[in-house]
Amino acid sequence: MRLVVIGADAAGATAASQVKRAHEDWDVIMFERGRWTSYAACGFPYFVGGLVSSMDALVARSPQAHEKRGLDVRMRTEVTEIDTKNRRVRFAELDSGKNGTEAYDILVYATGADELRPPIEGLEHCRFLQNPGQAAALHGDIAKARRVVIAGGGYVGIEMAEAAHMLGKEIVLIDAADQLMVSLDPDMAGYVREAIEARGIEVRTASAMTQVSSRPGGGFAVETAAGTIETDLVIAGLGTRPRAGLAADSKIPLGDSGAVAVDHEMRTRTDGVFAAGDCAEAWHLVKKQWVNVPLGTVANKGGRVAGINAAGGRARLPGIVGTAITKFFEWEISRTGLNQREAEELGMEVETAVITAKTTSGYLPGAAPIHVKLLAEAGGRRLVGAQIVGGTGAGKRIDTLATAITAGMTADELIDLDLSYAPPLSPVWDPVQIAARRL
Amino acid sequence: MRLVVIGADAAGATAASQVKRAHEDWDVIMFERGRWTSYAACGFPYFVGGLVSSMDALVARSPQAHEKRGLDVRMRTEVTEIDTKNRRVRFAELDSGKNGTEAYDILVYATGADELRPPIEGLEHCRFLQNPGQAAALHGDIAKARRVVIAGGGYVGIEMAEAAHMLGKEIVLIDAADQLMVSLDPDMAGYVREAIEARGIEVRTASAMTQVSSRPGGGFAVETAAGTIETDLVIAGLGTRPRAGLAADSKIPLGDSGAVAVDHEMRTRTDGVFAAGDCAEAWHLVKKQWVNVPLGTVANKGGRVAGINAAGGRARLPGIVGTAITKFFEWEISRTGLNQREAEELGMEVETAVITAKTTSGYLPGAAPIHVKLLAEAGGRRLVGAQIVGGTGAGKRIDTLATAITAGMTADELIDLDLSYAPPLSPVWDPVQIAARRL
Repeated sequence: MRLVVIGADAAGATAASQVKRAHEDWDVIMFERGRWTSYAACGFPYFVGGLVSSMDALVARSPQAHEKRGLDVRMRTEVTEIDTKNRRVRFAELDSGKNGTEAYDILVYATGADELRPPIEGLEHCRFLQNPGQAAALHGDIAKARRVVIAGGGYVGIEMAEAAHMLGKEIVLIDAADQLMVSLDPDMAGYVREAIEARGIEVRTASAMTQVSSRPGGGFAVETAAGTIETDLVIAGLGTRPRAGLAADSKIPLGDSGAVAVDHEMRTRTDGVFAAGDCAEAWHLVKKQWVNVPLGTVANKGGRVAGINAAGGRARLPGIVGTAITKFFEWEISRTGLNQREAEELGMEVETAVITAKTTSGYLPGAAPIHVKLLAEAGGRRLVGAQIVGGTGAGKRIDTLATAITAGMTADELIDLDLSYAPPLSPVWDPVQIAARRL
Repeated sequence: MRLVVIGADAAGATAASQVKRAHEDWDVIMFERGRWTSYAACGFPYFVGGLVSSMDALVARSPQAHEKRGLDVRMRTEVTEIDTKNRRVRFAELDSGKNGTEAYDILVYATGADELRPPIEGLEHCRFLQNPGQAAALHGDIAKARRVVIAGGGYVGIEMAEAAHMLGKEIVLIDAADQLMVSLDPDMAGYVREAIEARGIEVRTASAMTQVSSRPGGGFAVETAAGTIETDLVIAGLGTRPRAGLAADSKIPLGDSGAVAVDHEMRTRTDGVFAAGDCAEAWHLVKKQWVNVPLGTVANKGGRVAGINAAGGRARLPGIVGTAITKFFEWEISRTGLNQREAEELGMEVETAVITAKTTSGYLPGAAPIHVKLLAEAGGRRLVGAQIVGGTGAGKRIDTLATAITAGMTADELIDLDLSYAPPLSPVWDPVQIAARRL
């Protein structure tokens, strides 16, 4: 049997390894367009910011390590065509220019995502952070910059603001929306903005980037909906889009999200083809929709399930609830489930509660503020979403809520949970329960 | 209507406040033997260790504050008799020696717990930490001591070891068992012991304290099953027992645990009498038994439910799962559900897995070790217990497991959970999921 995997990061390499572990005698060929395998893309901001000394540190398993485990790894090789009828892929070696084909019995499509590139004039002047090459380039460029504009106040934007601040840069963070972090509700995003501004970073919302032009004397002018900003460097974190073009060209069906349609076993609608990772869809347990959530957690889970099933086993990914977390210096920011806008879009009536408490017993020196927002279905009070912004120890509390939401718990059941308490680690009612009581 | 509450700490004061809030016109009388109301007993070690500057800081609501909210607070007044037939209590004012009676329509029994005092000769030489008076006394005594023996390696023992170490004392921590922290399995307790010994604290297990004698020149000799230890101060944290004597004398039935028997509404088996807190039982959702777990979380929840029901509302405490947490310097220690011994005692066959991972992505400077142990029922793989010992951010992960256990999830469902990931806060597979995969 021969497994071909397209893409050697979280989903692809996980699936390939899973299959090789199950069937040592199978041929497992992994194609990778880039120069890296199994790297932690989420670690890029920490490499750029200097917390991680080299890109190599972000690599969980190198091409050589994969080969040692028996995988046939084809680096710098792009799959250009999938013949799903005859089960063959055509590939091009990017350095030599040579082409070739390989037959497969089972294919795993794990091409990842590209950065979103909206039609903005001069976008080529921006630096992105979606792949290792871009991260390495940005690492070099930021050293030379004094003033940095970060376009996009999402996860990457926030993390790059922290990185650039650690490097002592003068920073303007801009976003097209009226708030930062549109995955949070405006009230919770307000706390994030306060934290960022408290570090002396200029934040401009309702400031869509409309044009970037290079200045003759060096540097760039960033035109926004609310004025021009002069800068030495523009970093864009405007979102991503699934790399599903090859799949579409090969008649592997996409879902409404634009990512490859899969089922809970990570099977596409094409025989013999699995898909996983940023290029594929996942079932949202609260939205009850197939969505595209380009996160490492989802990619790893999807890759594992695809690998087990590709190897002839049985595994299922029930779905996700939209959990995400990030950090800005001492502030931890997390969310799960639906926010108010998402609930509205689904026509779901929700009740909300927002509380401010402390991460530990208030009388201890380490007590930091924590803001918790809960969303529950009106009537039944089933929990459907949560957001947290707070000091050290705040963010991972979202996992308790993600678990409760997955289990279908109500706000009342959250109050009853036997959560842990010791003065240096929590108030006697955990802040998530204080929020549930308010609700 | 008149509510009488016996005991003004977590459970009693919560119940009293709940009733007064619901019915401003009710008489709410709260009897308290001591000098303090609504204090955080879990904060005593931090007061003794100097992190909290005064006992007052541990008081969430003073007698005066309770009175301002309309409660009739009778401090230093002990209820000596409950006439459940005629619904009257007899009380004694401890300072004046005066006696009296009060009628009640509804009674809440929330007397708390006393320190366990095993029949050891010279036990009167030991300091305890169960009530505010003892905490204040210990605060004074520890300042004068150079050498400290801590008898009992449970939560209080560990926290007092931290406190005494912060004060620069020479410490010997002794325990009768073969391990510290018998609420953990021996393997996990071993990590705790390592952490304690790494701070230069001497740990002696299998060293039951058999006698304490005062030395003529000052100081004490602690006789143990494994030799004599000379010391300036002995702190005993040997457990607690519910203060249920008054209930028993008044024919309010106790459960097998020795605490007051209650139902899920915190009603005792005596008409008109509720009980809550350290003196009462709680339903253990995994053991499927009524147990006595003297923790602030359980007391607050029980007090709330007792108060709502006493006020004529409807509330229910489904039960607990035995969650607890503590900290020793940078180490966080937590547990939930059953440990192996408890599972064995119930005749339950379990599978276990122990993993060691990092609290964050391993390439970041803050990554600390985290050990996670999971217990699942053999066969069905339903999660029944978990233990965590690890660095900053490790401990509160137990809440995810407590939630999963409460929801009846299996190890496989834990793997599927959409838990949060960002490099500075977690590996891409959260350690609890790494443990579930191992399982």
